[in-house]
Amino acid sequence: MNMNETLTVIKNRRSIRKYKAKQIGDAELQAIVEAALFAPNAMNQQKWHFTVIQDKAMLDRFVSIIKENILNSGIEFLIGLVKNPDYHTFHHAPAVVLITGDEQARFIQIDCGAALQSIALAAESLSIGSCPITSSIFLFASEKGNELKKELGIPDGYNFMCSIALGYKDGEIPATPPRNKGVINYIK
Amino acid sequence: MNMNETLTVIKNRRSIRKYKAKQIGDAELQAIVEAALFAPNAMNQQKWHFTVIQDKAMLDRFVSIIKENILNSGIEFLIGLVKNPDYHTFHHAPAVVLITGDEQARFIQIDCGAALQSIALAAESLSIGSCPITSSIFLFASEKGNELKKELGIPDGYNFMCSIALGYKDGEIPATPPRNKGVINYIK
Repeated sequence: MNMNETLTVIKNRRSIRKYKAKQIGDAELQAIVEAALFAPNAMNQQKWHFTVIQDKAMLDRFVSIIKENILNSGIEFLIGLVKNPDYHTFHHAPAVVLITGDEQARFIQIDCGAALQSIALAAESLSIGSCPITSSIFLFASEKGNELKKELGIPDGYNFMCSIALGYKDGEIPATPPRNKGVINYIK
Repeated sequence: MNMNETLTVIKNRRSIRKYKAKQIGDAELQAIVEAALFAPNAMNQQKWHFTVIQDKAMLDRFVSIIKENILNSGIEFLIGLVKNPDYHTFHHAPAVVLITGDEQARFIQIDCGAALQSIALAAESLSIGSCPITSSIFLFASEKGNELKKELGIPDGYNFMCSIALGYKDGEIPATPPRNKGVINYIK
């Protein structure tokens, strides 16, 4: 089987957890985020929303909120993570996209997962690193969650689906975690 | 912003609803489905499963089951669709991938949505058409659903997430439905 550029990008995309401080250029960031809009989505409903945050002070504030909410969550595994003094939800990436969607829309998580992957692959195609981050769901976990959504311009009734950190890769590219091919069953 | 091959593939992927009867070659189909395994997934849990069906008689049988279950669903919109004599859930595609996942796994729909998009983009990169199909959830809607899962080798506790039809495109490529760019909010 011959590889092509897209197949190579799909296989080479890694979750990057170390970024350069340098901000992503506007044209590149726009190309990456707009790639999401071309993802398939159930009945072309497009009930998704993308908040692209490049404000470092805001991101650091959000990490504090996430930490506090995780510490109050009772989930020991996550509490252990955030107690590490080096913990930063977004790995200090210069840009983060929060993906939210209308919970009432059928298959909205599938739609948003497809959009997430479009962002990750568009970034990789431009040699920009990414890391999908789910623990940022805790940003909205306290009673202040709705105020935050309003502050961010997230539409009413939309909930957190996923987020993705974006930035120039720093340091070595991590190895691909082993993939289990046994999960594919061919029926001819 | 310069385009590259991957960005072009992301923008050119359309949902294709007319296929040639010709089966996809094994090497290509394998490259397409294995692309899914490289999707990001929460904590590398890989709690997904892919059933690749190329057996035309089986696919037609499944369409009959889906039709029957939709007719019993009470959902008028879908009932109207399946009453069309030309209705075929999978648009007569020669290959269909059923994506199932462990409902207990956190963010499994996001994982499977990302995997779905990897399949769609890998296919497009090889000039093979695809169409994500959600209504095939009705395959498992009746009490016989669990028997079918067993027949297909779907792991216990795994539920339908999405499916995708694959095949060589026939006829004109449909235009891109309009995309709403207003769903992106940049905060600097």
